[in-house]
Amino acid sequence: MLLVKCLYFATLVCLSLADYWLERKTLIEDESSQMLGSDVVLNAREQVVNNYLMGIKLAEYDAGISEPAKFLPSRLFFDVRASVEKSKVFEFIRAIPKGGLLHGHETAMLSFERLYNMTYEKGLYACIVDGRLKLTFSHSQTRNQSCDWKLLEDLRNSNDTYDQLLRSQLTLHLADGGYNDINAVWSAFQNIFGTITPMIMYRPFLVKYVYEALKELYEDKVNYVEIRGVLSTVYEINGKEYSEIETAGIYRFAVEEFKRDHPDFIGAKFIYAPMRMATTEEVKKYVNTVNELKRTYPDFIVGFDLVGQEDLGQPLSNFVNELGNVSSGIDLVFHAGETNWYGASSDLNLFDAVLLGTKRIGHGFGAIKHPLVTKLIKDRNIAVEICPISNQVLMLVADMRNHPAGSLMARGVPVVVGNDDPTFWGTKGLSYDFYMMFMGIASRNADLRLLKKLAENSLTYSLLPEEEKAIALEKWNAAWNQFIDSTYANVVRNVMYF
Amino acid sequence: MLLVKCLYFATLVCLSLADYWLERKTLIEDESSQMLGSDVVLNAREQVVNNYLMGIKLAEYDAGISEPAKFLPSRLFFDVRASVEKSKVFEFIRAIPKGGLLHGHETAMLSFERLYNMTYEKGLYACIVDGRLKLTFSHSQTRNQSCDWKLLEDLRNSNDTYDQLLRSQLTLHLADGGYNDINAVWSAFQNIFGTITPMIMYRPFLVKYVYEALKELYEDKVNYVEIRGVLSTVYEINGKEYSEIETAGIYRFAVEEFKRDHPDFIGAKFIYAPMRMATTEEVKKYVNTVNELKRTYPDFIVGFDLVGQEDLGQPLSNFVNELGNVSSGIDLVFHAGETNWYGASSDLNLFDAVLLGTKRIGHGFGAIKHPLVTKLIKDRNIAVEICPISNQVLMLVADMRNHPAGSLMARGVPVVVGNDDPTFWGTKGLSYDFYMMFMGIASRNADLRLLKKLAENSLTYSLLPEEEKAIALEKWNAAWNQFIDSTYANVVRNVMYF
Repeated sequence: MLLVKCLYFATLVCLSLADYWLERKTLIEDESSQMLGSDVVLNAREQVVNNYLMGIKLAEYDAGISEPAKFLPSRLFFDVRASVEKSKVFEFIRAIPKGGLLHGHETAMLSFERLYNMTYEKGLYACIVDGRLKLTFSHSQTRNQSCDWKLLEDLRNSNDTYDQLLRSQLTLHLADGGYNDINAVWSAFQNIFGTITPMIMYRPFLVKYVYEALKELYEDKVNYVEIRGVLSTVYEINGKEYSEIETAGIYRFAVEEFKRDHPDFIGAKFIYAPMRMATTEEVKKYVNTVNELKRTYPDFIVGFDLVGQEDLGQPLSNFVNELGNVSSGIDLVFHAGETNWYGASSDLNLFDAVLLGTKRIGHGFGAIKHPLVTKLIKDRNIAVEICPISNQVLMLVADMRNHPAGSLMARGVPVVVGNDDPTFWGTKGLSYDFYMMFMGIASRNADLRLLKKLAENSLTYSLLPEEEKAIALEKWNAAWNQFIDSTYANVVRNVMYF
Repeated sequence: MLLVKCLYFATLVCLSLADYWLERKTLIEDESSQMLGSDVVLNAREQVVNNYLMGIKLAEYDAGISEPAKFLPSRLFFDVRASVEKSKVFEFIRAIPKGGLLHGHETAMLSFERLYNMTYEKGLYACIVDGRLKLTFSHSQTRNQSCDWKLLEDLRNSNDTYDQLLRSQLTLHLADGGYNDINAVWSAFQNIFGTITPMIMYRPFLVKYVYEALKELYEDKVNYVEIRGVLSTVYEINGKEYSEIETAGIYRFAVEEFKRDHPDFIGAKFIYAPMRMATTEEVKKYVNTVNELKRTYPDFIVGFDLVGQEDLGQPLSNFVNELGNVSSGIDLVFHAGETNWYGASSDLNLFDAVLLGTKRIGHGFGAIKHPLVTKLIKDRNIAVEICPISNQVLMLVADMRNHPAGSLMARGVPVVVGNDDPTFWGTKGLSYDFYMMFMGIASRNADLRLLKKLAENSLTYSLLPEEEKAIALEKWNAAWNQFIDSTYANVVRNVMYF
């Protein structure tokens, strides 16, 4: 008779050393099986590609463990962007068909470089008010003598430093350190919108802007977009102004133009998302507007949200009565819990968003502190839109490894990646945020299955009607397989080195 | 017949507006009822004291929401210590009977000021090696001519700046910014131990040191301590050295001295916690040592742990075989998951700590990323020792609001507060860490019930034998009631203002 020594006791059961290792393995595997992406089954080719991916990932990750100061996701994005662009993992991510962008705002969708280049458009006027640049094409505005309006072109030619001023006002990147606090960075953030919105809202510029934004996303392998917009007033040079309904039509027109030129692009939809710093009367008006928008463009208008800094804005609970009148064809996709004030009204927005029947949650940064809300999010299959770089630049979290989305993914909460306002932090497309998600937020062990799931989720949790969604998923799937085939071929041919 | 409009649908049930508010209230209450401390029922006097506490808490908290840069728990402790000391909440916390300290290391338990004052002890020698100060009383060491040993007293008198150098080497507070990364701060951290340990290990100094450390805790309303120690070699001036067993006896002697002078002090126990950067042979020796320690001082030796930077040390899984031989009378209280490298070996220590049957977990910073481990921790009633200021200074998290212990407490995970190594970050006692826990990590709504629970937990989850524990809890309870009575009287007399 073999006597096995009891080394450990697990829930009163005597464990030998062999039992110990078995129990450990089982526990780790059980936990892994809850992780987002764990249900993805990789085929043989995908497994080869995954081996390549994990080779480059672990090399980069473990170099971080040895020299933490060099680990890119732990540092401020502005300081590491150039290094991210040199990462092999980033190169891999750029090539992935990433599905859709579900969290991006209308006037900050374009890359900084492209927006800056667009300031060379003829007829753009500039003036300075309280140290902030104002930009417009509108003659009715430039006739207003309270500001010394000049053609930007002339200002550039007459003064070498003007361009520098302009560039500094299109970004949240401060040359000398950072902002004092989250309210200060949000104030600067809103100032940029103040600078660029009157420029962007010139109808011909807006059409070009939307087209270029879709193009940059398309080039980054993003084939579908949901644009969140406040629908600022669009104008012509002569002073004609368009209503919110007409403005939505202009967006729709730009999207159609882009689709015509890029037949494999799935399309873009629109989420009406006006400012949350509002009275109940104003929200009642918003709701009427979104209902009318839906009646006018039923194929284009898909959702409703409220935007602006949650900590200082009105909580959703103020508008419960009004929000009940959003038409049933319009999905709610609320920003909620974009805060680290645990238990404050901005944090409690998470409860209301879920109870109001939101289909997705924007940010949900505070969700992990609320186990019942997290459970409801998972049970009701609500996707959380994570925007890693936004959360860092807007001072919610300094080090991506402390981003709570890691804990959400560990619980199998459906998550999608957004870029929020790429212009202001100097990114382009979705790849930078995917990189932070994969390298900084997810587990060291997260692999191709997570990337595939994040891409697939961006269509699964889109507001596309079921038929369009099926087609989008099919197209994405084909693109994915093509990506796998070509990467597999490269790996096998040893073109890609470990 | 009254027709109620369906405003919302919760799990397919039609909700009127009244239903909405009811469901919201229920959900928020259900979640609150899971929170750590939610089972504490406050009596009438405690409720009055709680009202006062929440008045001062919310004033301070909400001022932070308005001006985030002024919110103390979001900033580096070194920069806000003086402001913390002026906080009314801190004043309140200082007066609370806080129970026991369950996570503190033998040679860093004393406040910086007191340790500094103790360097005026006669007969202390100093020399500099590679820019680091060495301190000793040992003549056998100072006879070693490889270093230019001089009496510290003489060095101080001959050179005005020497004292500044000494002070700078007893703290992790850098005048010019911070450390490059977590490995750099850990290296500096270990250097301080290198500087002070040979001083502290002079037997008469050690006895005084332990006595003073207990006194500072006692003055901060901490009446029980579990000292984690590596048991470095203790010596006499003449060169005589003590074994590990004898050294433990010296600690025990110092504790008994203190107890004799302070009869209401519960006492102190010892957790043998040698370095984790070890071979299996060395760990085998550790285990023999702790078993022998327990046989020699069964009333004093209560636990076993391994210490040192987890990221760069050996994982627990290396020692599973050896650790199985720790005697059953000795509780395991492992450091585990003191890392933000999600999925790395340091992070996986959490699995092994739990499977090895740990009674408590030191730090458990990564636990929230592991839902099954978190569940096991809760189900097996394992307490997590949270050391907020340590985690910030040692660069795991910059802003207390992102400390994962908030999410653990939200799930009702038993948590206790530790101060880890107060010397090096300039705290004294437990109040500073309690403050960070209450103001920075817990919910805005966390109240006196949480503070009471944290204090009570520190005895409930201590390694005191059941009888001693019952007495300790009884004494603490009496002290608590006394605290409530006097605070109640002050509140009612309006001596404390809102």
